[in-house]
Amino acid sequence: AVVDKGVDFAQYFCTYGFLYHQKEMLCDRVRMDAYFNAIFVNKQHFTGKFWEKLLRGHSALLVYCEVLAHSDYPGKWPFNVLVVKVVLDVGTGSGILAIWSAQAGARKVYAVEATKMAEHARALVKANNLQDVVEVIEGSIEDITLPEKVDVIISEWMGYFLLRESMFDSVICARDRWLKPTGVMYPSHARIWVAPIRSGVGEHKMGDYQSTMDDWCDFVDETKTYYGVDMSVLSKPFAEEQKKYYLQTSLWNNLHPNQVIGSTAILKEIDCLTATVNDILEVRADICSSITLENTRFCGYGGWFDVHFRGRKEDPAQQEIELTTAPSVDNGTHWGQQVFLLHPPIRVSEGDNLSVSFSMNRSNENHRLMEVDFSCEIQPVSGKLIPRFSNKFYIE
Amino acid sequence: AVVDKGVDFAQYFCTYGFLYHQKEMLCDRVRMDAYFNAIFVNKQHFTGKFWEKLLRGHSALLVYCEVLAHSDYPGKWPFNVLVVKVVLDVGTGSGILAIWSAQAGARKVYAVEATKMAEHARALVKANNLQDVVEVIEGSIEDITLPEKVDVIISEWMGYFLLRESMFDSVICARDRWLKPTGVMYPSHARIWVAPIRSGVGEHKMGDYQSTMDDWCDFVDETKTYYGVDMSVLSKPFAEEQKKYYLQTSLWNNLHPNQVIGSTAILKEIDCLTATVNDILEVRADICSSITLENTRFCGYGGWFDVHFRGRKEDPAQQEIELTTAPSVDNGTHWGQQVFLLHPPIRVSEGDNLSVSFSMNRSNENHRLMEVDFSCEIQPVSGKLIPRFSNKFYIE
Ligand SMILES: Nc1ncnc2c1ncn2[C@@H]1O[C@H](CSCC[C@H](N)C(=O)O)[C@@H](O)[C@H]1O
Ligand SMILES: Nc1ncnc2c1ncn2[C@@H]1O[C@H](CSCC[C@H](N)C(=O)O)[C@@H](O)[C@H]1O
Repeated sequence: AVVDKGVDFAQYFCTYGFLYHQKEMLCDRVRMDAYFNAIFVNKQHFTGKFWEKLLRGHSALLVYCEVLAHSDYPGKWPFNVLVVKVVLDVGTGSGILAIWSAQAGARKVYAVEATKMAEHARALVKANNLQDVVEVIEGSIEDITLPEKVDVIISEWMGYFLLRESMFDSVICARDRWLKPTGVMYPSHARIWVAPIRSGVGEHKMGDYQSTMDDWCDFVDETKTYYGVDMSVLSKPFAEEQKKYYLQTSLWNNLHPNQVIGSTAILKEIDCLTATVNDILEVRADICSSITLENTRFCGYGGWFDVHFRGRKEDPAQQEIELTTAPSVDNGTHWGQQVFLLHPPIRVSEGDNLSVSFSMNRSNENHRLMEVDFSCEIQPVSGKLIPRFSNKFYIE
Repeated sequence: AVVDKGVDFAQYFCTYGFLYHQKEMLCDRVRMDAYFNAIFVNKQHFTGKFWEKLLRGHSALLVYCEVLAHSDYPGKWPFNVLVVKVVLDVGTGSGILAIWSAQAGARKVYAVEATKMAEHARALVKANNLQDVVEVIEGSIEDITLPEKVDVIISEWMGYFLLRESMFDSVICARDRWLKPTGVMYPSHARIWVAPIRSGVGEHKMGDYQSTMDDWCDFVDETKTYYGVDMSVLSKPFAEEQKKYYLQTSLWNNLHPNQVIGSTAILKEIDCLTATVNDILEVRADICSSITLENTRFCGYGGWFDVHFRGRKEDPAQQEIELTTAPSVDNGTHWGQQVFLLHPPIRVSEGDNLSVSFSMNRSNENHRLMEVDFSCEIQPVSGKLIPRFSNKFYIE
């Protein structure tokens, strides 16, 4: 599917042009701490080795180093003298990650942002006196050109259930065009998780759906009585529309850990250094989960993700940092979890085994939204097998 | 400004593709009654004269009539025999107005709808056994062609404050291309109204705004403390963004008539038969309103519209039908009223005179949204003149 830039802007980018929305992300402490620690605990990825900094201010030496740095001998110079790091922030938004990268010691940071937020980022960079290091570029990462390749690509590209928004495509594009062969990705790895859950929301939604349909029936009756038009032919499409957009749409939810009723499983692992767009276009996995609670209700699937900052094999992080959006009492994130509800729930008990086939594809109408299929067979500890049943969901 | 069709679809048409949204309009009794009565009380616009109907079924005579009807002698035939009416419904949505037009006796109804709702309209037409009369055409009215000119153009094109959505442009386009010189517009006239109002919502919004700004200040402090970045340079743009999208955006409101505190005035009158796009691109008016309540608070302006179904001068409606969206206890519509709030309110009293200059233009970014300017001078009965003050608002 070819993407119309104007439409993409209208549907996707527009919200990121608001400070209000950027602030929501900036107020997510778990997110902020993870990136902050990833950068400052692993300063060497942004600074180079400590004593190289002594070179700064000695412009003759620095120029010499830069010449070598741009030559074909990266890393061959003893003590990595030449690694005076250049960073690219893909989708800089308010500029926060670019600013931290500069504060951590980067020689140069390219901060690329598609929306008008770039202007605010530029102001913020200036107000923090980093205008000599951070260069804010307004434009799509796909369209812009940089004067040099970079040592680090940092980006906060994760959407709900990791892949919603499909922004990782842009990070891949940036990586393939601008990352040095020795470069490092921040974050370096990502995973998608799923687990069976219990939740009272399903009944609630089912109740709403029922009353919407009751209401529709009244409407059909009244339209016939008062206005002489028989609307009943639309009852089925109306019910289908409601099911699709109300019952089959995944929910944002802040799950309590005790709502997870079975073992968790990984649906997808991504190595940010090597993954291709093709690798993430479709996610397929067959997983098992065994129920860990006595006599409970299997109400649906909970999905979330985590990412890690590990540096790169030849140049690992000093301390690996994790950002997880798993159900948590104290460390919830603005991503929450995605919940895919079954109607009605199914009684299960400790030791019952779910074998689940999962697939996720991009929606045809909007490549930034997803369609998800779950199919599940339940082998209970006692009693008879519940044959495979399938459910389709939309991540809107 | 050139309009990108894809963007327009993403931003505007998309919602009309949902039965859920069409139903909201179909459940608006005031709206439905007005169109229903307009059509059935004035059947002759849709049927032609009673005895012409006798011709129906006499195909030889009918063919003869049609030949003449397409010739250059419309209306010259005695007793209007030849006027067997053809209707165009611009933006048929669910098809309701087209179906009524057919039920009222039209020979042919072209029902044009830009969205996939056209498919549901087609099903509804069929289920009501009108497929021989109503032809549903999926497409923009600007793009499609009809095999003949029409006697009536019916359309429900009114947005909030009448002109939001700018859909009347499409009706004008349809009229200029497809209406016979003798044709009739349904509705035939439209007016925009304004009045000074009192409301408690303003303080509420102001309170929310204040706490959003307090919250922002905490955020600036914390980001400095925990993350070493000074965000204060963004405080002003953040406040401006909040003002624009929270305080200066007009509100949907269902005003009680007793919230109107002064005389109402007309900002614009439109003759649907003759108005051009140029006439509605900008609305400007200088109006007066005198306060009708003792010692009250002037909290802002309330705006609404009405439309009339009068037929055409040479071919008037038998009974004029009105659809008004004015403040009302029992006859509210889904349009409600648009409220433009002053912060803070101003004390006024009976007999005080407001002289208000109004202007409304389309927003540069989106031709379907509006920017509104009010400027007001208050001549109080006693005390001294309150000099002219101006307020800008966005209709989003
Ligand atoms: N292809 C692309 N080119 C440039 N910017 C993009 C992009 N795709 C997404 N973005 C931007 O990337 C940002 C993602 S949100 C993250 C913002 C910021 N880095 C932070 O961590 O707070 C948004 O501002 C969005 O507008
Ligand atoms: N230029 C255009 N061409 C075709 N349809 C249009 C149009 N502009 C708006 N519309 C359609 O006009 C409808 C307006 S809402 C009114 C629907 C229906 N006539 C009723 O009265 O219930 C929407 O369904 C919208 O999709």
